[in-house]
Amino acid sequence: MSVLVFTARHVEQAVSPDRAVDAVRDAFVAHARGEWTMPPKTYVTNYPAGDFRAMPALGGGHALLKWINSFPGNPLQGLPTVSGVVLVSEAETGQLRAVLDAGSVTALRTGAAAVLAAETLARADAASATVVGAGVNGRAAARTFVTRGRAVKVWDVNGSRAEQVARELGCGVASSLEEALADDIVVTVTPGHEVLFVSGSLRPGQHLSLMGADGPGKAEVAGAELERSHLFCDDWEQASHGGELAHAVEAGLITESDVTQIGAVLAGTADGRGGDDEITAFDSTGLAIQDLAIALAALERADEIPDLARLEL
Amino acid sequence: MSVLVFTARHVEQAVSPDRAVDAVRDAFVAHARGEWTMPPKTYVTNYPAGDFRAMPALGGGHALLKWINSFPGNPLQGLPTVSGVVLVSEAETGQLRAVLDAGSVTALRTGAAAVLAAETLARADAASATVVGAGVNGRAAARTFVTRGRAVKVWDVNGSRAEQVARELGCGVASSLEEALADDIVVTVTPGHEVLFVSGSLRPGQHLSLMGADGPGKAEVAGAELERSHLFCDDWEQASHGGELAHAVEAGLITESDVTQIGAVLAGTADGRGGDDEITAFDSTGLAIQDLAIALAALERADEIPDLARLEL
Repeated sequence: MSVLVFTARHVEQAVSPDRAVDAVRDAFVAHARGEWTMPPKTYVTNYPAGDFRAMPALGGGHALLKWINSFPGNPLQGLPTVSGVVLVSEAETGQLRAVLDAGSVTALRTGAAAVLAAETLARADAASATVVGAGVNGRAAARTFVTRGRAVKVWDVNGSRAEQVARELGCGVASSLEEALADDIVVTVTPGHEVLFVSGSLRPGQHLSLMGADGPGKAEVAGAELERSHLFCDDWEQASHGGELAHAVEAGLITESDVTQIGAVLAGTADGRGGDDEITAFDSTGLAIQDLAIALAALERADEIPDLARLEL
Repeated sequence: MSVLVFTARHVEQAVSPDRAVDAVRDAFVAHARGEWTMPPKTYVTNYPAGDFRAMPALGGGHALLKWINSFPGNPLQGLPTVSGVVLVSEAETGQLRAVLDAGSVTALRTGAAAVLAAETLARADAASATVVGAGVNGRAAARTFVTRGRAVKVWDVNGSRAEQVARELGCGVASSLEEALADDIVVTVTPGHEVLFVSGSLRPGQHLSLMGADGPGKAEVAGAELERSHLFCDDWEQASHGGELAHAVEAGLITESDVTQIGAVLAGTADGRGGDDEITAFDSTGLAIQDLAIALAALERADEIPDLARLEL
């Protein structure tokens, strides 16, 4: 069994942010149509240190398993907070075809989903955009906006981190969090420990892509602000349990009928933005089908990457 | 991130059948004491072709994920029915340490469990032993018996396969299925599509290690025969849902209190065989903690294996 090995560099070489947006769009549509499926994740928890997630998906003739973790204390030891691998096997024979660095796949699909949601749900005349949080996935979102030709700023609680990302990508830095949160498009990619949008802070017509709050007890937007937004998510099952919307769902403030899956909008079976004054908010929890989309896009380009290693098993 | 790669040959070099029995025993005990844990498996099904299983475990300072599949039609294409990889990460930092061939890990731990159960539950004077089913895992069980110094025979519906395994291992071949099923110790490692032990066929004092029937609709022993046996399993949760016992559980013939987990026997908190005339039956469904035990045993020996490859991620 000869298995292709994509390091982070190989994944980035193989899949441009533009290609990632197309691949993730197709995945959301295929999922909405029931063609791509996503069995439940399973968790291995080793708190307080961190946790592991095994995220499976099936589609495009392949089965995927992402083994990824989150260890918040790792940076103190010079290790990444998030690491892992993506395994891609053939769906008809089970043969393992590729192992990919999971961090780079996750960054690409998270950036792609943030921008895809903005392009799908923001006002057509949306002019200003900021990415709040300039970590790995925030950087990926900003990079995707830049590739798509949109002027974007970044903001981070760590100012020098924001400046470094802005220099790298050739984009601006928001002068304050207040300025950032007032933009037409706001992508939040924070750890979700602090609410960014407090009561009354959202402006009519804004679009939010909420990428950060991905677990219990995390939120980037106050519940009252969610209530007056037109709500979208990547997957109701995940979003109602562990995402931005989970608190409001628990509190009985919102139910499934209040929230539209973005795949349905992209597939043309549900409405997106209702009018110029609506606030649209997309809650991203991160789906294994998005990872599958990026992994398959990388596999398509395997022949064009000269120094791809092979694992003989 | 530099990751050790164990091919099947490396796994076999690193972990002898003797070491595997010890490692699996320790894992069952650690699991019984709640020190090693095993979150639920998740399945990716692509029937009729086959399915994938993601099996996690946590213990010994490591987290494990086995991504393994079963594609029954594969041999017609010259591919193995079962293949996959085992991933081992550090539990405190999430860092991936090793990728191992899953088929060889599975064979070692299945063989070890079959023999461990026989050594724990069979009569002390048990003399004759046969492994029914000479596929990869049946061969592993026979090999483990041979290593432990027990005279063992093999039997397979495909006679030449049985003879080949017997030649390789230097053991005997049962002259008929009837002879095989009359032995003091019978290990069954069949696909579980046909019941081997029909009503009334079990002899007082026999021990069965039932390794084959690992999924819905599969069985190696008739329900009535299970009812008159002293029942053991590896894990009640798994065994009551997808193993040999599942039918009898569904039919209300047996309940949790009728079945002892072998880890409790090995840990000294539950009784094993009750007397010389008892029939003991161990239902193995295969646990991720067993895979973890084998993987950690392999990692311990990494420095002694000269040609181990490393995956740079």
